[in-house]
Amino acid sequence: MQSAEQVLAVLRKRGELWEAAPGLVGMRGDLLALHRALERVIAELARSQAPDEWGVPAALAWDTLKTADYFASFPQWLSAASHLSSDRAVLERVARGDDPRREFVPADAALPPAVCYHTYAALAGRILESPTLMTAQGTCWRHEGERLAALERGWAFTMREVVCLGAGDECEVFRCGGIEQAIALAESLGLDEEVVPATDPFFAPTARGKELLQRIKGLKHELVLPLGPDRGIAAASFNHHETFFGEAFDIRLVDGQPAASACVAFGIERWTLAFLVAHGPDAAHWPAIPHLESATWQP
Amino acid sequence: MQSAEQVLAVLRKRGELWEAAPGLVGMRGDLLALHRALERVIAELARSQAPDEWGVPAALAWDTLKTADYFASFPQWLSAASHLSSDRAVLERVARGDDPRREFVPADAALPPAVCYHTYAALAGRILESPTLMTAQGTCWRHEGERLAALERGWAFTMREVVCLGAGDECEVFRCGGIEQAIALAESLGLDEEVVPATDPFFAPTARGKELLQRIKGLKHELVLPLGPDRGIAAASFNHHETFFGEAFDIRLVDGQPAASACVAFGIERWTLAFLVAHGPDAAHWPAIPHLESATWQP
Repeated sequence: MQSAEQVLAVLRKRGELWEAAPGLVGMRGDLLALHRALERVIAELARSQAPDEWGVPAALAWDTLKTADYFASFPQWLSAASHLSSDRAVLERVARGDDPRREFVPADAALPPAVCYHTYAALAGRILESPTLMTAQGTCWRHEGERLAALERGWAFTMREVVCLGAGDECEVFRCGGIEQAIALAESLGLDEEVVPATDPFFAPTARGKELLQRIKGLKHELVLPLGPDRGIAAASFNHHETFFGEAFDIRLVDGQPAASACVAFGIERWTLAFLVAHGPDAAHWPAIPHLESATWQP
Repeated sequence: MQSAEQVLAVLRKRGELWEAAPGLVGMRGDLLALHRALERVIAELARSQAPDEWGVPAALAWDTLKTADYFASFPQWLSAASHLSSDRAVLERVARGDDPRREFVPADAALPPAVCYHTYAALAGRILESPTLMTAQGTCWRHEGERLAALERGWAFTMREVVCLGAGDECEVFRCGGIEQAIALAESLGLDEEVVPATDPFFAPTARGKELLQRIKGLKHELVLPLGPDRGIAAASFNHHETFFGEAFDIRLVDGQPAASACVAFGIERWTLAFLVAHGPDAAHWPAIPHLESATWQP
């Protein structure tokens, strides 16, 4: 097994991996072909649980994250999309050479930190007659400052999620099914996975209690894949939110109770990197994986 | 032929189209299936010209747009990604309830207004031994204020581009080939296309000359598709940049001259909307198109 650093050095040298800025990667050639194949394999897995696929918007309404109490929970990751004022004088100053970075209006939209917020926003105020499942893949954004690292921890990265809303026990059955599927996927790809209890890195001191409850109740697990002989990375997570989002977004069951929710999330770049660490950067040595089309790009 | 407004009303009513905020659309069901099918058809067309596919980063380095003289040319569209300061005091204020929109640091990265800027950035400083072609699909961002309209004019939208760098005549041959391909595509989809000379909407008064030159030299054409009996929308553009980007990014040919460039760009949501206007919102009445899988989502 090579280290992630050795693999990344080879990919950069081959011109298959580059960064526009820290945490913003581009891909070509065999690396891109592998990433796409894993996207497709994981999409099929997701659709087998949730045939209803959504194409989610590129950003979230500001109020969606506010309703989800996101600012109190994870302000450290928050990213936003903004644009210049349409004031002619501002645009003229920018066109003449003023630094546009000083001229953006306060952000209109949040760049999504996870796909599932789109689901709660779209279902807000609804009454669910039966367990509701959806899946989507989207670009998600979490700013992690000095910790950003190519493929391992992106400012922008590719997330596939499956979301279930329904009764609490239905959500738990769904979540456990997701754990089994992800374990089977890792083994089929020749990866040594480990599923461990986990907590979210809540920011606020007042949220410490949430972390403790999450651990005691077993509400979050992560699937960890090796990135070298002595370290690993969480490549999927399995989360039971109880009725937190159902209450926040007023999503109810037919008996009037708030819906529970659970989500299963895959970080595609992390699966890609773990695969490369396990099998090396040369496609000739990779095990067969479905959907891997031979790359046409030559360095 | 229905109007775009009638089609959009049906899609919203079926729950297949929604907006997180103006210009930020989500899709489900038959609409999503159609959009994906068109993505794939157009991707195949692009790969037949440029087998080298890139997975481009989700944002651009600030300097890339500066080098491309973007701020002078199109400040009105400029969008940026930013994050909160990592200062603990700021994060604590936000966690306690302060409006985070006031606390973003000046933007670190630009949200891409077009895919091809990634190409020039990645090839900066290179000498090209032969015509260089690439293709990529990405989410692009252009803020158009009051003009934003679902599927027709998104703040974020899906662009497929094919880019060619080489000698000027090579780029022109590529550009004309792109026009022919796009016309054939429109006809195969049963759409009444029209190819017309066009100019970019340069902002600065000093850039007016560019517009005039663009028109006189025939450097830009657009393929327009009908959105109703009396109006249409540019759904693809075919652009020759002469040596503008080659000079700006120091990309040269073996003889030391700056490379010329051309790009062919498809706006996927616009093709989707024009198809729906031509054939109606009911999948049962659509002509056969490759890759259209029956949607599994039921409203």
